[in-house]
Amino acid sequence: MYPECIKKIIESFKKLPGIGEKSAERMAFSVLGFEPESLDEFAEAIEDIKKIKRCPICNNITDKDECYICSDSKRNNETIFVVEKPKDVVLFEKMGNYNGKYHVLGGLISPLEGINPEDINIKSLEKRVEENNVKEVIVVLKPSIEGETTMQYIKKILAKYNVKVSKIPIGIPMGTDIEYIDSMTLEMAFEDRQDIS
Amino acid sequence: MYPECIKKIIESFKKLPGIGEKSAERMAFSVLGFEPESLDEFAEAIEDIKKIKRCPICNNITDKDECYICSDSKRNNETIFVVEKPKDVVLFEKMGNYNGKYHVLGGLISPLEGINPEDINIKSLEKRVEENNVKEVIVVLKPSIEGETTMQYIKKILAKYNVKVSKIPIGIPMGTDIEYIDSMTLEMAFEDRQDIS
Repeated sequence: MYPECIKKIIESFKKLPGIGEKSAERMAFSVLGFEPESLDEFAEAIEDIKKIKRCPICNNITDKDECYICSDSKRNNETIFVVEKPKDVVLFEKMGNYNGKYHVLGGLISPLEGINPEDINIKSLEKRVEENNVKEVIVVLKPSIEGETTMQYIKKILAKYNVKVSKIPIGIPMGTDIEYIDSMTLEMAFEDRQDIS
Repeated sequence: MYPECIKKIIESFKKLPGIGEKSAERMAFSVLGFEPESLDEFAEAIEDIKKIKRCPICNNITDKDECYICSDSKRNNETIFVVEKPKDVVLFEKMGNYNGKYHVLGGLISPLEGINPEDINIKSLEKRVEENNVKEVIVVLKPSIEGETTMQYIKKILAKYNVKVSKIPIGIPMGTDIEYIDSMTLEMAFEDRQDIS
């Protein structure tokens, strides 16, 4: 029904998150209207994904030897945000006021799924804390059993070092009506309640 | 904040319909997980878009000299579905029970926007009707002033040939609650009312 390349591009688009048959078709037909230069740029960017490596220090994605955060001498080594995925780094970088470093675990401990501490990038975190003058490690993981397990494990292995290990509270997102928040979150937020300053 | 190719791929995804910053980012990070072969296939399909031409008979998209519908000798030449865009052809092909041909206008007449009959692919429709044994032309265009204008124009230029020119009624889509239908559509559907058979 479609020329071969349209068929293939629809198949490729369908592999993307949240894209079904109809959206993929709509996208494919819009690509038909792209300028040749835009097509080149698009295709080239996709090919270049193969050049993406992991930063040997923090495990974030990079196309250099080290990621741009680890190699930035103006950023302090005293604070490390521990996150699950490279995308989480972007979220915090968008806050714009964080000047420390990151550590990307690349997964969460999940005994049920057979994911043990040695399967994720945790050992290197301990090494970073041991070798550098790290003052605070802020663990920011998805509030879930796996997130909590991983957080507790990190707290345990870092206990012997002179470093503060903190987390971000469970609570209600800005602008969200309380009626949309599940009772588990409300209960946890209630336990983490703070004095009004 | 991103490696260069991620930045570029996000920009490319943002050119697609309905894709904003957040979706483009999510899609870019999912491409990071593609196998090398999937990346090749994706990039190649995008490059191959340049090979897409228009069928000289019906103006549908094709990567051959003629589109697969026009070159299919098992399809009859007696019926022509007149549609606006190549994508509309796909919609009707998905019905699965149509065995005639198509004619893609590539636009609608719109005096307000300066689009005249000679700016769209109408002349060749008259030629097809004149030269082939076409029995019926079914005009299926968006119900709008431009669609109506184009439909009337087609009816006029085909009046001198022994061909039936028909349209599809304005009505209520299957499964749609009437409360979601605008009053203009209801009024038109009322005018086009049919006996219950």
